[in-house]
Amino acid sequence: MSKPDFSNLSAVFVNCTLKKSPRQSHTRGLMDVAANIMVSEGVTVQHVRFVDHEIPPGVQPDMTEHGYAKDEWPGIYDKIMNADILMIGTPIWLGERSSEASKLIERLYAMSGKTNDKGQYIYYGKVGGCIITGNEDGVKHCAMGMLYALQHLGFSIPPQADAGWIGEVGPGPSYLDEEANAKENDFTNRNTTFLTYNLLHLARLLKAEGGFPAYGNSREAWDSGSRWGFANPEYR
Amino acid sequence: MSKPDFSNLSAVFVNCTLKKSPRQSHTRGLMDVAANIMVSEGVTVQHVRFVDHEIPPGVQPDMTEHGYAKDEWPGIYDKIMNADILMIGTPIWLGERSSEASKLIERLYAMSGKTNDKGQYIYYGKVGGCIITGNEDGVKHCAMGMLYALQHLGFSIPPQADAGWIGEVGPGPSYLDEEANAKENDFTNRNTTFLTYNLLHLARLLKAEGGFPAYGNSREAWDSGSRWGFANPEYR
Amino acid sequence: MSKPDFSNLSAVFVNCTLKKSPRQSHTRGLMDVAANIMVSEGVTVQHVRFVDHEIPPGVQPDMTEHGYAKDEWPGIYDKIMNADILMIGTPIWLGERSSEASKLIERLYAMSGKTNDKGQYIYYGKVGGCIITGNEDGVKHCAMGMLYALQHLGFSIPPQADAGWIGEVGPGPSYLDEEANAKENDFTNRNTTFLTYNLLHLARLLKAEGGFPAYGNSREAWDSGSRWGFANPEYR
Amino acid sequence: MSKPDFSNLSAVFVNCTLKKSPRQSHTRGLMDVAANIMVSEGVTVQHVRFVDHEIPPGVQPDMTEHGYAKDEWPGIYDKIMNADILMIGTPIWLGERSSEASKLIERLYAMSGKTNDKGQYIYYGKVGGCIITGNEDGVKHCAMGMLYALQHLGFSIPPQADAGWIGEVGPGPSYLDEEANAKENDFTNRNTTFLTYNLLHLARLLKAEGGFPAYGNSREAWDSGSRWGFANPEYR
Repeated sequence: MSKPDFSNLSAVFVNCTLKKSPRQSHTRGLMDVAANIMVSEGVTVQHVRFVDHEIPPGVQPDMTEHGYAKDEWPGIYDKIMNADILMIGTPIWLGERSSEASKLIERLYAMSGKTNDKGQYIYYGKVGGCIITGNEDGVKHCAMGMLYALQHLGFSIPPQADAGWIGEVGPGPSYLDEEANAKENDFTNRNTTFLTYNLLHLARLLKAEGGFPAYGNSREAWDSGSRWGFANPEYR
Repeated sequence: MSKPDFSNLSAVFVNCTLKKSPRQSHTRGLMDVAANIMVSEGVTVQHVRFVDHEIPPGVQPDMTEHGYAKDEWPGIYDKIMNADILMIGTPIWLGERSSEASKLIERLYAMSGKTNDKGQYIYYGKVGGCIITGNEDGVKHCAMGMLYALQHLGFSIPPQADAGWIGEVGPGPSYLDEEANAKENDFTNRNTTFLTYNLLHLARLLKAEGGFPAYGNSREAWDSGSRWGFANPEYR
Repeated sequence: MSKPDFSNLSAVFVNCTLKKSPRQSHTRGLMDVAANIMVSEGVTVQHVRFVDHEIPPGVQPDMTEHGYAKDEWPGIYDKIMNADILMIGTPIWLGERSSEASKLIERLYAMSGKTNDKGQYIYYGKVGGCIITGNEDGVKHCAMGMLYALQHLGFSIPPQADAGWIGEVGPGPSYLDEEANAKENDFTNRNTTFLTYNLLHLARLLKAEGGFPAYGNSREAWDSGSRWGFANPEYR
Repeated sequence: MSKPDFSNLSAVFVNCTLKKSPRQSHTRGLMDVAANIMVSEGVTVQHVRFVDHEIPPGVQPDMTEHGYAKDEWPGIYDKIMNADILMIGTPIWLGERSSEASKLIERLYAMSGKTNDKGQYIYYGKVGGCIITGNEDGVKHCAMGMLYALQHLGFSIPPQADAGWIGEVGPGPSYLDEEANAKENDFTNRNTTFLTYNLLHLARLLKAEGGFPAYGNSREAWDSGSRWGFANPEYR
């Protein structure tokens, strides 16, 4: 099996931990496993720790136009737009993704009126995945919401696009804690590996194709009256 | 913009309504909008109304080996395996997908130990999407769970892989009811169209590639010791 | 602290495992912990293993009126109506409650047009809780959906009305498997205990009060024009 | 039917809109319907618009001890602790509660190590509900997560503790927009009324009882070895 060349790809890893740098983030610990694979494959990887930035809540592209003194979102958005892959990482709190992860998705959503030069939604052609850590429960629930948002916004989702680690139910050690021995968890290691390579494969494929053809999915074309094979429903 | 050729693709539409034939299924009504587009593009489309078949609950490939007299799942599984695209349709009950939709996912999951000839999980290379109808609320919640399950099992999810229709909150007419006037809902029509074409584009692309390369995502290779770029996490 | 008298209370435990009797149900294992507490407190406890009964899908009170030869739901509904407490147990499959649990909720919902002698929805005055087991992830997600459904249907939910057990992420032993050592999990034991007693306390309180007063929540009164303190919204 | 006296009760309404004052909040519009009922019944009602306050993310009681210059959470927490009822309001973004609602729940959760004078978790004896508005979909999904969090933290949830308004699927007017005509939605008005009165009934009942008896649910007693009727599981 030949090794594909992923060296023209780039990825942004946005860590939605609630802890500012330089505090240890367990989520970053697992994100690094994926990032290290990408780096070893020649992919350009950038990291953003969302909570380190001054990013107001809101659903407008730039909140400085809506009463906030500062908004670092536009710079982060540019990073995401310049990358082929978006990996969202989140810790779990009470079974849910962090409020920072929700704020990230709200801000991504705020740009969703934009379209690319084919008239498609702006994130078409990019791929997305997620990494989740906690100490007791909720990997899948968090993944459901984040992958849903990503695909709804226009990202493509390859197979097994979520990976995570949690311990046995109840309070306990977190991912990077020695006593968790999480680095020996074969399931987490395998899923993180498959997630990473599937993001790379799909990003590479879509990049080679120049993204999705605009036939049947261009918002601008729809608004101009194109319908392709769509026919108004007849009721029986 | 040239029109791609989708004529070598095939799709299975599984309607998870709780109502047996020949009762009217509103979900089928919206599924037909997508199916009709596919047919107009030369795609081979098959429909399965899950509740019309005798399919026991369970997470084994064939429940006749576990105490049930009859199990029509293996035949439906074959249809799904022979198709490039799986579209799941569900009504909404109390904000959730139907129990039939859950049973379908359980039975899909029951096959997930199988691998293809590259050693990848069996659904790799296929694409999945969903269509949801109700009369008041829950399209996105149902989509979250179903798209999550599909990608976790190995399906790829193109952009905007969910479409649906609901009316204003509270009891009211359903999709096919004249007074709902749902067929004029531009949002539903557009989303259903984009969903359909994005499934076709991604299925076509993956089919042309022979599915995903096995580099970095083969369960059999992992179990045999392959790790590709994965390195055991070092903690800092 | 005096010990309350719970001996006039009754509870129904509905186990939504996918496995028919006499196969071992891990979920039943944890449900028994709660049931044993109740029995030790003099509560009358009945168990129903949902999958052992012939219960068609559907949202009608009696599906024999809708084309099915048999429907054991009405008898189970009577048991639930004769009890003060409903405990739903479910295994987790792909992060979700079982299709049997969904079918149970659909059938409970099918009765929601009924009202009691105060004109309130039929389940008012009863309390509900849930128990979830799996081997890797999803207790909270399953609890979210089931407790939501219960309260929406009219059940009251006491504090910490969910308990469960899962192991570390990934495949592994289930609740009753010796090597899981789940019976020593202090978190699960404590949560199961608190869940159980909180159901008893709230059920006892509501029973002593004769359920909820009908002031402000009677469907029949609303339909007859009662509005109590509600005033039609004025917009500003 | 006599009218209960609710005049010794108090409630805090926390609006988790993403919009700062004085911008119009549609969610506040529907919250006012509930608040007005409470005021008409003599209940003391306070409003908090979460986004108007400087509240860092985090899961510590006071984030000024963790690197933030300011944290208004402790004052809001005091308001919640002094009230019998907590009503959370949220808008819907991409089918989910707002990031502000998630931050509120994270901060509530940060206090969950505290116990009352019976050794129970600190929110025992309080009741909680939620109000959700959006323009297209997601009331139930948002309610599932918020009611789950509330009960898990120790709040009690009365019947039908969620109310909301959304329009037909797709973009459209919001709750307070004249053309939505939402104030005539009988379902929303009725649910909001029942939600409000059920919160009042249960809060009144629990207040009269002095909260929950500590028998079987005191964290401190459990930690000191009390087990009440709990017996360590025997496996069969």
